[in-house]
Amino acid sequence: MSKFTRFVVDDIRFPTSTDFDGSDAMNPDPDYSAAYVRIETDAEDGLTGHGFVFTIGRGNDVQCAAIAALQPWIVGRDVEEALADLGGVWRELVHDSQLRWLGPDKGVIHMAIGAVVNALWDLRAKREGVPLWLLLARLSPEQLVDLVDFRYLSDALTREQALDILRAAEPHREERIAALQRDGYPGYTTTPGWLGYSDEKLARLSREAVADGFTQIKLKVGADLQEDIRRLSIAREVVGPDIRIAIDANQRWDRDEAIAWIRELSRFDLAWVEEPTSPDDILAHAAIAEAIAPVPVATGEHGMNRVLFKQLLQAKALGVLQIDATRVAGVNENIAILLLAAKFGVPVCPHAGGVGLCELVQHLAMFDGIAVSGTTDGRMIEYVAHLHEHFAEPVEFVDAHYRAPKLPGSGAEMLAASIAEYRR
Amino acid sequence: MSKFTRFVVDDIRFPTSTDFDGSDAMNPDPDYSAAYVRIETDAEDGLTGHGFVFTIGRGNDVQCAAIAALQPWIVGRDVEEALADLGGVWRELVHDSQLRWLGPDKGVIHMAIGAVVNALWDLRAKREGVPLWLLLARLSPEQLVDLVDFRYLSDALTREQALDILRAAEPHREERIAALQRDGYPGYTTTPGWLGYSDEKLARLSREAVADGFTQIKLKVGADLQEDIRRLSIAREVVGPDIRIAIDANQRWDRDEAIAWIRELSRFDLAWVEEPTSPDDILAHAAIAEAIAPVPVATGEHGMNRVLFKQLLQAKALGVLQIDATRVAGVNENIAILLLAAKFGVPVCPHAGGVGLCELVQHLAMFDGIAVSGTTDGRMIEYVAHLHEHFAEPVEFVDAHYRAPKLPGSGAEMLAASIAEYRR
Repeated sequence: MSKFTRFVVDDIRFPTSTDFDGSDAMNPDPDYSAAYVRIETDAEDGLTGHGFVFTIGRGNDVQCAAIAALQPWIVGRDVEEALADLGGVWRELVHDSQLRWLGPDKGVIHMAIGAVVNALWDLRAKREGVPLWLLLARLSPEQLVDLVDFRYLSDALTREQALDILRAAEPHREERIAALQRDGYPGYTTTPGWLGYSDEKLARLSREAVADGFTQIKLKVGADLQEDIRRLSIAREVVGPDIRIAIDANQRWDRDEAIAWIRELSRFDLAWVEEPTSPDDILAHAAIAEAIAPVPVATGEHGMNRVLFKQLLQAKALGVLQIDATRVAGVNENIAILLLAAKFGVPVCPHAGGVGLCELVQHLAMFDGIAVSGTTDGRMIEYVAHLHEHFAEPVEFVDAHYRAPKLPGSGAEMLAASIAEYRR
Repeated sequence: MSKFTRFVVDDIRFPTSTDFDGSDAMNPDPDYSAAYVRIETDAEDGLTGHGFVFTIGRGNDVQCAAIAALQPWIVGRDVEEALADLGGVWRELVHDSQLRWLGPDKGVIHMAIGAVVNALWDLRAKREGVPLWLLLARLSPEQLVDLVDFRYLSDALTREQALDILRAAEPHREERIAALQRDGYPGYTTTPGWLGYSDEKLARLSREAVADGFTQIKLKVGADLQEDIRRLSIAREVVGPDIRIAIDANQRWDRDEAIAWIRELSRFDLAWVEEPTSPDDILAHAAIAEAIAPVPVATGEHGMNRVLFKQLLQAKALGVLQIDATRVAGVNENIAILLLAAKFGVPVCPHAGGVGLCELVQHLAMFDGIAVSGTTDGRMIEYVAHLHEHFAEPVEFVDAHYRAPKLPGSGAEMLAASIAEYRR
């Protein structure tokens, strides 16, 4: 029997704006940051649960305050009991009637809950001595659906339907685990495509991406149509016809502008068009998806919660669903979203990059491939070669594939030296 | 020339949970609270701008932290310049690329921006010596559209279309101002309908409502169908057939459950059904609205931003639009929402109650009636007789009508003694 004793919350900021890493049409000068929490217990194992919310700078302090405000829900509780019922803990936090007013189910308070939930998953995986993806991949269908809250989802996905999906993927889990450990999980790269880069840098990084074995790259677009045409011409020429090129507008357009703009770019044989407009605009995404078919619409990194994803799927508004590890209320809500995607037959290609998003989200994609969708066909995790050196188990990325993490935990653990150096 | 000098932020909590005021199917024990800001300047007039976010207790500290974090955007700026361009200030805050990551346009950070924007409007109205409703009602159509950001709205409402709406309502503004000052603005009451009240209290308060001149009351529902039937029977019997009865489920149901439940209650001749399901679920609201017609669906108090309201209108998901004074990014965003409602011909019946929501939102409804929709037909502001005594100009409510506020400002100013007594 042990108890949670305290949260240690740190406001961590990397000064990435100085070299334009991560610049796009909506985010000209991000300082990649993390509102970072370590949850301590009085257990003799000395293990701590780590979680965080990725932000891009200003406001990271607000996100830290929100995480710290959740201490009373966790500190003092029995550790074993909480970790054995993370579905229950999730419901308690998300449905707290007073906290809920601050969302509901969205924004700062929801992401804060996500950091705490993810930290508890990190601790549970460490205690069980396995990486999170493997822990999830070996839970039973019943255990998995107990983690999910089906409120507001039942018109698209019931508990019974979720069980059917998970049971259908159950028979060959162990083979898929072995295949993953052997082959890794496919990735694509955004490294060449930031808006702030010169043409020369774009061409060089695109060429390197192909040499590195990538089958898909992604370019940021949306600031200037003629620039986009020029940059896509360069990229397409460098990579040749067989490499997929996705584009990402980072919410830059209104509906009709998006349709017109994308039509100008579709001659470059686009793998997908990401975030064409407001992430909240289901109806506009549906109209864009219809207008630009067969080019698929991709969105999700700003997708606030499971109710939004449900509607995007119901409205046929996306062809690629991009989960994010720290935007929603943690592992549990992402399991709900993976189940919704499987129900609608839409591939999940997670958003990553930022601070530690690759480290975290790979666990969810790998779990999806083993136990939910049961496939990696048409699936890829975004890969950005930034800031991995600050993590206890940095992403291992070989031949354009994520290697399956081996260390116990969720991947969230940042090096103490990095925390000390970059915290405010 | 004067400068903004500082924010004073207070975490104000009223212990309302002790007597069940405000209890409903989702919020059993709210402690009505306000994350309250006063913005000071170095001007000799000594005027301060007041604004706040209403919350229901836990998490009010997080909301305060978010408001305080916005100081660097305001403090040090030229007061006259900022107040003359509140559209520009709004864009700067809402579109700040780093802050935006915490929403975008939703939740704690968005509501914090709303409090600051509203405080600036309060200061501007005080400096001009007029109540906010009158200040807004006398701005030109061009000045009004300059306050609105049309990004993500253009598929439903362009600047030109907004100008047309405002110009159409321009000719008889002064007559409507005079009529408002004479007659007030209609209200309806939620006072009888809280779930925690006994049958006797429900009957007595319903009877009193009719005696007080109300033409509509509202009952909370959604916890138990048989209870709802019993309570609606009591209310309908007490008020008779001519008084409108609206019901409010506070997001309690999933889509199909909502439809089935409402069909059981529709025999009571319902004025509207409020918040049947998740406030984010446009598609479910549309399905419910179609299924329960001609009973209209009402929603909005948890409506996170203009993009959500746009879609609810596009999808014919609501028949009554309920703005809230502190849920979105302040007066400017509510002007956008009023314009959208006018474009789609949907009446706006604001959410109120809470702490100071009546005091604030009446200004927006009165402005709507004078200068946007140009009518009060089918419009009513919610009225709850709670906590008004803490405000510098408490709502004056006579014969079931809100009297037009007379004091300069937005209505947000709380008495210093109340702040001192209830702040943490």
